[in-house]
Amino acid sequence: MPDSPVLFLADTAPDGATTFTRADPGAAHVRVDDLGVTRGDGIFESVAVVAGTPQSLRHHLDRFTRSAALLDLPIPDTAAWARAVTDAAAAHPPAPELLAKLVLTRGVEGGDAPTGWVHVFPAPDHGPQRTAGIDVLVLERAYPSDVVTRAPWLLQGAKTLSYALNTASLRYARSHGAHDVVFVSSDGDVLEGPNSTVLARFADRWVTPPPELGILDGTTAGRALAWAAGRGDRTEVARLSADDLRVADAVWLLSSGRLSAPVRSLDGVPRPTDAALQAELLHHLLTVHD
Amino acid sequence: MPDSPVLFLADTAPDGATTFTRADPGAAHVRVDDLGVTRGDGIFESVAVVAGTPQSLRHHLDRFTRSAALLDLPIPDTAAWARAVTDAAAAHPPAPELLAKLVLTRGVEGGDAPTGWVHVFPAPDHGPQRTAGIDVLVLERAYPSDVVTRAPWLLQGAKTLSYALNTASLRYARSHGAHDVVFVSSDGDVLEGPNSTVLARFADRWVTPPPELGILDGTTAGRALAWAAGRGDRTEVARLSADDLRVADAVWLLSSGRLSAPVRSLDGVPRPTDAALQAELLHHLLTVHD
Repeated sequence: MPDSPVLFLADTAPDGATTFTRADPGAAHVRVDDLGVTRGDGIFESVAVVAGTPQSLRHHLDRFTRSAALLDLPIPDTAAWARAVTDAAAAHPPAPELLAKLVLTRGVEGGDAPTGWVHVFPAPDHGPQRTAGIDVLVLERAYPSDVVTRAPWLLQGAKTLSYALNTASLRYARSHGAHDVVFVSSDGDVLEGPNSTVLARFADRWVTPPPELGILDGTTAGRALAWAAGRGDRTEVARLSADDLRVADAVWLLSSGRLSAPVRSLDGVPRPTDAALQAELLHHLLTVHD
Repeated sequence: MPDSPVLFLADTAPDGATTFTRADPGAAHVRVDDLGVTRGDGIFESVAVVAGTPQSLRHHLDRFTRSAALLDLPIPDTAAWARAVTDAAAAHPPAPELLAKLVLTRGVEGGDAPTGWVHVFPAPDHGPQRTAGIDVLVLERAYPSDVVTRAPWLLQGAKTLSYALNTASLRYARSHGAHDVVFVSSDGDVLEGPNSTVLARFADRWVTPPPELGILDGTTAGRALAWAAGRGDRTEVARLSADDLRVADAVWLLSSGRLSAPVRSLDGVPRPTDAALQAELLHHLLTVHD
């Protein structure tokens, strides 16, 4: 599979109408005084493109719009962004799994327009983690579970470009022999991973934590819950503690790129995984386009 | 004063040795897949250049190095960065006050070198806030005061590019009729401003909060404490509560660009300022090069 990323740059008019132009992804397109880089002041979405089809694009664009509102950014012209994702995906050489990254920054400091782009590139190989599972550490996020209402200026629940602590948490996990992280609030609520949503199964009950905790409304988790409901199981958006995860029948971390990764250990303690169920869930996520 | 920013781009060799090349600041130099913009994964410093002289450059470079270590970034070649700041400042048309911004990102995703630059540009006009003072809101930072030891993966105390919540907090303040913010920890410690250090005076005692709280070691606060000590006053790095600020004889927010800004109200309650002392402090910060 040739590594031939496709880049579409946004041009946003004062009325918000946005047009996209194809550009060379190997060239520089961001100025050093763009607030996206000097302040991490912007938002993003990562959309899976499976067999050429962007997955859950409407849900991603709705969340992109909510993130923009939380940051007082111009509301995205979602019709134009949707076309750009579809066109960029179509312009990429065919591949089983691609990622489309949508970015919108506050633009050049002192300027009057946001900076934006859609970047489509091959997804990393998640095969081993999907099959063998992942070792996960439970780490403090150090915020209370009511941070969104108490302190909206902290932007919890927005998918911002200020992700340094997420990548630092993943480095911390790797340096401690793990693959990934589940964050918990200061008052004991399971939150999310640095770039994933938590899903736990207790017999025929499937649970993912609620966005009111200041976490993202997981696109892939929503798809997984719909699949579980389709099997006749019960699905719930509800609070979980780390101890709940330790007694669950199975736990997954879900995200648009890796899709579903079974948690095979928590803080070094082996946890059961269910290879047949994982295969069924992953097959659904890879084949059903919604 | 012409707006003629100067940009020097870093080229970091595998052994860390860094050379800088002058480039056009109006052109784009950052790729869309640079982790500095996609993840806010990098660090920065803002150095005041007063009457052509970079202020406290050694202290800024020491802090830049500590931030790099906290993020597992390559340790900066500080001699090369110091020369770049000095050369870029010298290349700028003379101005009373400039800012030099130093940025180091983790570089292009999948690449093998960091991205870095020094950008020198005219400082904004801080005259009104220096003279008339600022209205400040006390806002929750929602982290406990021991976050650095409890949760180092949250990167508190590093000056990272992931500043979206800092700019959001300032927007929140402005939308509530204030200029600036003082953050407090979940257990009541005064921390810092979104881009400033807190300094309080109680009679002849000057106090700034300690970096152990997960806040930056303020360059300008250090200079102000040295000035206060030179006046024969007592200086302390010690914990403060918001109530302490409410009974202080005077409070300032200090930063490299604005230097000293007297706090004239806290949460809407007027606070005394001391015009003569502010003039003396500001004169020191503007004229003594250290």
